Amino acid sequence: MRVGAWRWWMGSTVTAAMMAAAALAQPGATTQLEFVNTLMPQPAQLTIGEGWLPVAPGFSVGFDRTHDERLETAVQRDLRRLENQTGVMIQDAAPGAAATLTISVDGPGEAVQGVDEDESCTLDITPQHALLHAATDVGAIRGLETLLQLIQADTRGFWLPAVSIQDAPRFRWRGLMIDVGRHFEPVSVIERTLDGMAEVKMNVFHWHLTDDQGFRIESKLYPRLTGMGSDGQYYTQDQAREVVAYARARGIRVVPEFDIPGHTTSWMVGYPDLASAPGPFSIERRFGVFDPVMDPTRESTWEFLDKFIGEMAEIFPDAFMHIGGDENNGVEWQHNAKIQAFAAAHDLHGTAAIQAYFNQRLLPILTKHGKKMIGWDEVLTPDLPKDVVVQSWRGFDSLAAGAKQGYSGILSAGYYLDHMDPASAHYRVDPLPANSGLTPEQASRILGGEACMWSESVSPRTIDSRIWPRTAAIAERLWSPRTVTSEDDMYRRLAVESLRLEALGLTHISQESASLRALAGTPDIDTLRPLMAVLEPVDFDTRSKWSQHHGVTTLSPLDNLVDALPPDPPSQHDFGDLMSTYLQDPIDHPEIEAALQETFRSWSADPRRMELLSTSPQLAEALPRAQQLAEMGTMGLEALSYLSSGVQPPPGWKAQKLAILDEAQKPVALTRFTILPAMRALVNEVR
Amino acid sequence: MRVGAWRWWMGSTVTAAMMAAAALAQPGATTQLEFVNTLMPQPAQLTIGEGWLPVAPGFSVGFDRTHDERLETAVQRDLRRLENQTGVMIQDAAPGAAATLTISVDGPGEAVQGVDEDESCTLDITPQHALLHAATDVGAIRGLETLLQLIQADTRGFWLPAVSIQDAPRFRWRGLMIDVGRHFEPVSVIERTLDGMAEVKMNVFHWHLTDDQGFRIESKLYPRLTGMGSDGQYYTQDQAREVVAYARARGIRVVPEFDIPGHTTSWMVGYPDLASAPGPFSIERRFGVFDPVMDPTRESTWEFLDKFIGEMAEIFPDAFMHIGGDENNGVEWQHNAKIQAFAAAHDLHGTAAIQAYFNQRLLPILTKHGKKMIGWDEVLTPDLPKDVVVQSWRGFDSLAAGAKQGYSGILSAGYYLDHMDPASAHYRVDPLPANSGLTPEQASRILGGEACMWSESVSPRTIDSRIWPRTAAIAERLWSPRTVTSEDDMYRRLAVESLRLEALGLTHISQESASLRALAGTPDIDTLRPLMAVLEPVDFDTRSKWSQHHGVTTLSPLDNLVDALPPDPPSQHDFGDLMSTYLQDPIDHPEIEAALQETFRSWSADPRRMELLSTSPQLAEALPRAQQLAEMGTMGLEALSYLSSGVQPPPGWKAQKLAILDEAQKPVALTRFTILPAMRALVNEVR
Repeated sequence: MRVGAWRWWMGSTVTAAMMAAAALAQPGATTQLEFVNTLMPQPAQLTIGEGWLPVAPGFSVGFDRTHDERLETAVQRDLRRLENQTGVMIQDAAPGAAATLTISVDGPGEAVQGVDEDESCTLDITPQHALLHAATDVGAIRGLETLLQLIQADTRGFWLPAVSIQDAPRFRWRGLMIDVGRHFEPVSVIERTLDGMAEVKMNVFHWHLTDDQGFRIESKLYPRLTGMGSDGQYYTQDQAREVVAYARARGIRVVPEFDIPGHTTSWMVGYPDLASAPGPFSIERRFGVFDPVMDPTRESTWEFLDKFIGEMAEIFPDAFMHIGGDENNGVEWQHNAKIQAFAAAHDLHGTAAIQAYFNQRLLPILTKHGKKMIGWDEVLTPDLPKDVVVQSWRGFDSLAAGAKQGYSGILSAGYYLDHMDPASAHYRVDPLPANSGLTPEQASRILGGEACMWSESVSPRTIDSRIWPRTAAIAERLWSPRTVTSEDDMYRRLAVESLRLEALGLTHISQESASLRALAGTPDIDTLRPLMAVLEPVDFDTRSKWSQHHGVTTLSPLDNLVDALPPDPPSQHDFGDLMSTYLQDPIDHPEIEAALQETFRSWSADPRRMELLSTSPQLAEALPRAQQLAEMGTMGLEALSYLSSGVQPPPGWKAQKLAILDEAQKPVALTRFTILPAMRALVNEVR
Repeated sequence: MRVGAWRWWMGSTVTAAMMAAAALAQPGATTQLEFVNTLMPQPAQLTIGEGWLPVAPGFSVGFDRTHDERLETAVQRDLRRLENQTGVMIQDAAPGAAATLTISVDGPGEAVQGVDEDESCTLDITPQHALLHAATDVGAIRGLETLLQLIQADTRGFWLPAVSIQDAPRFRWRGLMIDVGRHFEPVSVIERTLDGMAEVKMNVFHWHLTDDQGFRIESKLYPRLTGMGSDGQYYTQDQAREVVAYARARGIRVVPEFDIPGHTTSWMVGYPDLASAPGPFSIERRFGVFDPVMDPTRESTWEFLDKFIGEMAEIFPDAFMHIGGDENNGVEWQHNAKIQAFAAAHDLHGTAAIQAYFNQRLLPILTKHGKKMIGWDEVLTPDLPKDVVVQSWRGFDSLAAGAKQGYSGILSAGYYLDHMDPASAHYRVDPLPANSGLTPEQASRILGGEACMWSESVSPRTIDSRIWPRTAAIAERLWSPRTVTSEDDMYRRLAVESLRLEALGLTHISQESASLRALAGTPDIDTLRPLMAVLEPVDFDTRSKWSQHHGVTTLSPLDNLVDALPPDPPSQHDFGDLMSTYLQDPIDHPEIEAALQETFRSWSADPRRMELLSTSPQLAEALPRAQQLAEMGTMGLEALSYLSSGVQPPPGWKAQKLAILDEAQKPVALTRFTILPAMRALVNEVR
């Protein structure tokens, strides 16, 4: 249990007593330095040695063999981060002289990074010297991130611990998908996301570039794709190439997705002949599954796709091209007599069979342009060749079934960031559980997984807090040994990782306050903090239903209270952790009882909080939450008092309090409380 | 005096008593709506009418005459901001139907926006309807910003007050210069800065693109300019065109500066023949005035400049090109025998005379490429034609002298953002004071002014807080009537303006916390807030001397405590305001006395604060500041006690306290306190 951890989401009321308690509980940073492992992801092997290597003026860096421009740039970039962190200027080692840090790389790695790129590295640090060795640039890039994460500080300066690390990823495919179709994200957002991915050693950026709601990549051959299907929000080919280069510089592949044959309304606005219904089409503004689907029976469709894929293959060098293939409801095919006649003539029974035909025709086009196919679960039909890769949104069973048939796959079920699940839930999802029942050969076909950022409710302003820091937990699941499973330790390190991500320029922490200031119309939002710290967005289903009911579209604003709140805020784990430690033995933890009392007091009905919530309609929606928090504060103080005094509560007390918690469980202003399980446990403990 | 205002820089300790006092002192937002004027800049004329126009579902917008794409885009952009602020979807008015807001524009305005563009507009709002009228797109863009700033909220929703506004700028040239030579700023930073400029109705972005430390714009004719002179940090021509278009869309001109003949080291790295000394040259890493200067005696220099300026003239359509012309120390000219011989032959005595010759040769080249010349004070030599514009870093007298000779000019002395002066100091600087002594004709030659962001100590991460919100005060000085001079009212509105700027995506508020989290290595920085809220960076001279002494270069990190702190934080004005109100009558202001007591208590020696300051070397530097703050907290409580009780302090008390304040005046960790004048006044009041 981390006594320090509960303090930062508590908001503003901190007493001297609490601070003294906290100071006592934490090892003073001014005393002897002790290595605190905050590595994320955890390395495959770590051995701690004796002593420290100072990061101080004179620290120099050199290469013991040749290195290429990518490695040079990566080292310069990371040294600049090291300098910014420490204020210490790092020098290039003089020719022939021994460097403090030697970087030793066997070769540059693959010309186009592939699934089998060697990302391993070793890091040996002694009090005199550090040696980073890797087979490839990419391995060195991974090792440099580890090096930066190892640094510890005290008043005297900055230090690297003596350690020996042998590291390599558990899975070869560790990805993040961003859907820029439903809401567009500018290049600057994509690039800072790539920075975050590199920080946690992810290696695939899956760019969902087209969907019903928008076509986001320039085609010079088919200019009406963006000209009529993007509202002007798209990437030029130059920008896409810039992103590919930016990713490669960080050891990240870019897999573009062109979702076909369904999810294609935006294509058909400018090119209605692609469709299986007469049209005309307009950009879809709603969310869900829609009817427009490509017509596989027209040769013009295949000519179009051949040229388009050829054009895209020039921009995206990765071996894979993602063709989507999901959620085709078959409606247009069923209503098109010509397509039905074609299906009958070719013995294609039903939507799945026609789509299998579609994929059979598509595959040689991809092959012609040098691309392997990857698609969502639905692409997996019996006659597909074995080098098609399946991305499973359905779950491990679907993935395992594919593996048994000889198909490689990646897992995304359980990694949907828009579901608003806590990091711990994602962390528990293993693409290859210990009890998988797969043979070693079958197991080797599970390539890894991908976090998915679907963007119904995501804007450039809010995307960072939807992706980070939770994705770091997924990245660790995909990199670190299967045995690394402690959720408490993950959350301890995630809190530090979150700051490292912020230092890279991500806005996942700062945006909450900025949004609250905007909503409240004042910089003085301290009084809101105790409330906001224990609220998070409702789950995906609740918001979806609400959005449908309220006619929310892609054009609706995303600047409400729910958008300001990050999912899985620190209170969720830390308050639960604090409470469960307390409940193990209420009498023996006076300092935790004091902390809980102070927290409960900070929840009290605060006239200034109420007033501030009344300043705007969006905040006023949350007024019931402030009232409920106050009730829970009172409830908490009463429960502590009963537990410490041994006095019994009056009859009906528990039932009344549980009823309040039941009421607090209901969504208000699309928010939910993070503290209810812990409060329920507390109330139930009172007898 | 704003009782609410002191709360948000006070940090974390807020008591119920304070909150109750604050609630009592502020008109409840839930009671009857009252128009609060937060316009920045203030309009030329404002008349408040009766009633309110609701911004609610059904609010529609239409044009009563034709409009072009620029206006359409601007309206869409601003309506999207309105939607984000209110959550209300705004509709296009149905054809033929009456719109809630009608936009009526006479014509698009100049094809290339010039100094004399008509920026005037009128805004008439009744409870039924709003009418925005302007002669040009640019005027409409100004009026839309006013409209957005007028919106008020209560629990029921959002409202526009019934008003009648006639607006036009006092000065035609209202600029912001950014030096991207000493530290580069990416396009994303430039674009969000342009958003901020448009918000406060500024109309010139002066882009200082070249200096000794870097050449930041691609030349296809002379690729070694960036190839060897930029460290790879430069704008492509496409990016520069994008910025020009982005600015034009917001009614902002882009004036590029190519600083010659001095400040040109970066040119000479790739093209040493331009120089007056043999070379070779390398990119300058230090700060100051350096010797490299172009050789005006070689014809090759003029061929180079002719071609280069022609190339740049294609990218930057503005009528003006800034040629710098400042701080040429003449050393290379003095040491070059050929140049000295040339000078003697041409009767050019001294550096100024040679530079006058340089400008004489330069002028026809600019003219040939359709450009007028603007330069710093030094360009003003007797033989220059009258359409050269002078930018004065020397002050009003220099500007007035030019105006008397017939030269137009703009003022920058007094608007140097890197000097770390408070907004009030800039606000007091008027380019055309009432007592200027100029004739109306001469006065008309004072075109306006420019805020200057020189970048010795500025990074992409910190630039926002160096520019904003102080620049909004300068923007108001340049737009609003001369009679708008209340500093208290300016600060009241600046606090709101600061939030509006944040809502545009600027990071001037959020960066401080993000930087403190990075320095402290923990998200739990509440205990630092009371200290950081009353610290700001030292003035320019103090930092310059420190930097020289410590060998600071362009490559040095800019992530120290001083970089995290914004200049002129709210505490500076608000604490002074609170104290002066209190001191007017200490007995009659119990609620202010209570607020001061609470503030002083929040300054007490806090073991957790001390511990946190010990976690990193950069923070540990500020430990003496925490001690001094604690001493001032004690001093403050004692002073309040003496004043309220009428008891006399012991002998020597005052002298001892003043000595503490003297000590606190000295720079520590490149920081200074904002509260010293108020504390001094308090101590002096004790008798």
